Amino acid sequence: MADQWEITAEELESKFKEISVAEFFEKNRHLLGYENPTKALLTIVKEGVDNSLDATNEAGILPNIKITLSQTTADRFLITIEDNGPGIVESKVPFAFGKMLYGTKFHRLRQSRGTQGIGMHGAVLYSQLTTGKHVKITTSTGKAIHVFEMMINVTKNEPHVISKKELKNADKWHGLKIEMEAEGKYIERHQSIPEYLKQTAISNPYAHIIFEGPNGKLEFKRTVNEIPRQPKEIKPHPYGVEIGIMRRMLSNTKTKNIIGFLTTEFSRVGRGSAEQICKLAKIEFSQNPKQLTHEDSERLHKSMQMVKLISPPTNCLSPLGEKLITEGMKKELSGEFFVAVTRPPSVYRGNPFQVEVGLAYGGQMPADQSALVLRFANKVPLLYHQSDCATNEAIVETDWRRYGFSQSGNAAPAGPLAILTHFASVWVPYTSEGKQAIANYTEIVKEMKLALQEAGRKLSIYVHQKKRDSERQIKRQIFERYIPIVSESLSKLTGKDKKIIMKKLEDITKKKTDFLIVGEAKEEEVKEVEGNKEET
Amino acid sequence: MADQWEITAEELESKFKEISVAEFFEKNRHLLGYENPTKALLTIVKEGVDNSLDATNEAGILPNIKITLSQTTADRFLITIEDNGPGIVESKVPFAFGKMLYGTKFHRLRQSRGTQGIGMHGAVLYSQLTTGKHVKITTSTGKAIHVFEMMINVTKNEPHVISKKELKNADKWHGLKIEMEAEGKYIERHQSIPEYLKQTAISNPYAHIIFEGPNGKLEFKRTVNEIPRQPKEIKPHPYGVEIGIMRRMLSNTKTKNIIGFLTTEFSRVGRGSAEQICKLAKIEFSQNPKQLTHEDSERLHKSMQMVKLISPPTNCLSPLGEKLITEGMKKELSGEFFVAVTRPPSVYRGNPFQVEVGLAYGGQMPADQSALVLRFANKVPLLYHQSDCATNEAIVETDWRRYGFSQSGNAAPAGPLAILTHFASVWVPYTSEGKQAIANYTEIVKEMKLALQEAGRKLSIYVHQKKRDSERQIKRQIFERYIPIVSESLSKLTGKDKKIIMKKLEDITKKKTDFLIVGEAKEEEVKEVEGNKEET
Repeated sequence: MADQWEITAEELESKFKEISVAEFFEKNRHLLGYENPTKALLTIVKEGVDNSLDATNEAGILPNIKITLSQTTADRFLITIEDNGPGIVESKVPFAFGKMLYGTKFHRLRQSRGTQGIGMHGAVLYSQLTTGKHVKITTSTGKAIHVFEMMINVTKNEPHVISKKELKNADKWHGLKIEMEAEGKYIERHQSIPEYLKQTAISNPYAHIIFEGPNGKLEFKRTVNEIPRQPKEIKPHPYGVEIGIMRRMLSNTKTKNIIGFLTTEFSRVGRGSAEQICKLAKIEFSQNPKQLTHEDSERLHKSMQMVKLISPPTNCLSPLGEKLITEGMKKELSGEFFVAVTRPPSVYRGNPFQVEVGLAYGGQMPADQSALVLRFANKVPLLYHQSDCATNEAIVETDWRRYGFSQSGNAAPAGPLAILTHFASVWVPYTSEGKQAIANYTEIVKEMKLALQEAGRKLSIYVHQKKRDSERQIKRQIFERYIPIVSESLSKLTGKDKKIIMKKLEDITKKKTDFLIVGEAKEEEVKEVEGNKEET
Repeated sequence: MADQWEITAEELESKFKEISVAEFFEKNRHLLGYENPTKALLTIVKEGVDNSLDATNEAGILPNIKITLSQTTADRFLITIEDNGPGIVESKVPFAFGKMLYGTKFHRLRQSRGTQGIGMHGAVLYSQLTTGKHVKITTSTGKAIHVFEMMINVTKNEPHVISKKELKNADKWHGLKIEMEAEGKYIERHQSIPEYLKQTAISNPYAHIIFEGPNGKLEFKRTVNEIPRQPKEIKPHPYGVEIGIMRRMLSNTKTKNIIGFLTTEFSRVGRGSAEQICKLAKIEFSQNPKQLTHEDSERLHKSMQMVKLISPPTNCLSPLGEKLITEGMKKELSGEFFVAVTRPPSVYRGNPFQVEVGLAYGGQMPADQSALVLRFANKVPLLYHQSDCATNEAIVETDWRRYGFSQSGNAAPAGPLAILTHFASVWVPYTSEGKQAIANYTEIVKEMKLALQEAGRKLSIYVHQKKRDSERQIKRQIFERYIPIVSESLSKLTGKDKKIIMKKLEDITKKKTDFLIVGEAKEEEVKEVEGNKEET
């Protein structure tokens, strides 16, 4: 039978081969954001700046970040990114830049910009792929300064250090400086480095960022002198743990009995809840976690979902807050009315998350275009793949006609409107490793819609009031136009003084068409508006 | 200085950790298509069927594929996928299902459905994550039958074989059967397993596919008894090789001199071209490839791009062909007019690719909705992430008003229209590992637009003719309505017989409003239409 085949399983055997994760991403570099030279430059800067913000935040240092970009040939740029962070200890430098899927953040349940140990490695990979050159890393933790010249051994996914030297550090400098050359194209509009930095400055007002680009210097000054509260690391919540993960936790635990396992390895499980779970699952309290059968663990997992537990702690999150959102929008957008909403934290798959929304309205914003959308995830601006983002789904599924905007079919609202969204979470489900859009998890879209509706309702009071005002003004103008004629006729009919009649008619018109001063809607009116709307 | 920090670089040191690629995808399983239970079931079936089609195609076997799906608990399903392919040799089974980034297709430059050694592994990963259970693999290459029960050791990305047995194979069965249980939700509309199988049957008419689902049996019979020509493996073309890759090839080559390197490791480089490249780069013909300096290799790389070489061979591709596309659409769509276009092969980053487009028009298709879009890549239907796909970009950027359709802003055309696209390539740049959308590479979008325009022009002749016909018919009806009255008046005025006048008027009307029989537009008219349109 086999002899008629074009290729046999035996022939195929020799073709089986292991691929390193670096090879995979080198070939699929568009997954990391390197599908064209414009986006590639932006991605390198973004990965560097995000890492610098994470590192400084974590160490409690007010970030100073300096980026320079200079053209070396027709299609190549030299990029440097320098921060005043805590630096990286000498022994870890090769891995932090030369081994993909290596980092500090993957297993940690707390909000941060990076997570995967892929971002900066991807930049190194792209640099050496397009120029064949090594990158230069200079770092210090405050002691000696270490300088590495290195590449990634792609086939092995291992660092390849070319040279390494130690310098004296008289000034006790600490931080990290990355230098690399890469193929790229520089632009300044839309999905560009300046736009990314501008939005980064909105969501990180405590950062001081200097950019020296091909067309001069841009500076984003620190407007807040306080670093936000550090998010705390949490343990997984029983409601969000899949059975496969739980079984791994059972076999890796250092605890000696199942009660210890439940109370130590999970958040929000006290002695009482642990006993309740065990009873439901018909497992002895003293049972060794490593000796559970598959059936035991299935029952344990089910019971964990059934016992009532409080939600996971939310101090692992670091939202922007309504004040910062409003201020950020006021600074960067030309609106006349601003509103911000920070929703209470919510949970999906055991991961706490929080949605925030800001709306800017009117002013100089164009009235005949689709609303401007600014998306953030863990304080990082998302500039690409908007149409594929949970944010977009929430926006187009919200009925903006309720709030006084036109909206056609499955589209974003049109009008002088900007929509800012921030998704803060211990784990952001990005649609690709390039981290440009949030996957459409139902719970996330739902929370986003609630936030948009809440902000939309608040804005609609202003929008509707403004519409009513302009209608009343038109009405009054019409009345006023006819007052002289009507007064004259009435004067003839009644014999009374025309001037008195006119004055009275003017008073009535004014009283009937007088309006609230814009923006000062009364509390009752808010309630009325909210009561009338049925939100879905 | 360091003492004021919240966490020091030294403390962070201990937090650096390597993550296995299996852990990465377990956590980011939405990247593989497992973000919700409905899509998860579809993804498992898709990965299994795609692999079966690849394996049978490669061995030159007409594929028989059987899928069963049965519900085991409220939210779990048992899935089996069985084929009559060449099977997998015993020693490779654990890796083929238990080690991610391990496979036969990654380094090969030829068209195939799978590429990455991630798909089926992802299904195993999802199964054990959501049920905690192992999968069962039964396979034979025609000799003994091997049965494996196995899981993936996620932390190590290594196979964990639980049991293994050998059975006699009296019937000389060969093939592969996969059985696994997983969390899921079964639906039958839109982005569903039946829809995926239906579209798979369109693009693979030589496959016989049986699906036994929760609601009964679905059979897709073989309509073509010939397997398409096997695509051939090619070597990389110099124009598409980045300098980083070329440097790796230089250090890995077994050739002894640079001329040997160029003629052996690349396609379309003969002795003459190789000498030309060396001369341009100022490198001796006898130079040992492993001893090139960085500057040498930079010059070599530049020269490779400058010498005129013919395009890479395209027998690595296996397009559907215009006949098959038209037949597939006729079978599955209720149109009245069909047109298909297979473009000549093109190249991006040295990878040959080919775009095909089919249009179905009229019939029972709704006239007031957006066009139905069917997307395929390497003969695999793409059901998700349409808005983020290069196909979508090409469709919305095409001006469909030229071809007689309404189209608003940046949207797909509206009308009784279905658009089928097929992207065939040695390497498809998917936007995520779940392989549901093609990344927006400029060259790809451009070729797709050209294909859509070509098909659109052909269709427009029919559409415009049909419009003209209906306009003429209305005109004739109006004339005919007035002929009796006009004839009577003329008869009175001239004294001639009313009947003769009527007959003559009828003849004139018929002659002036007579029309071509629909669908038989003449060659001249085709040229005229094409000449009038300026395509961009």
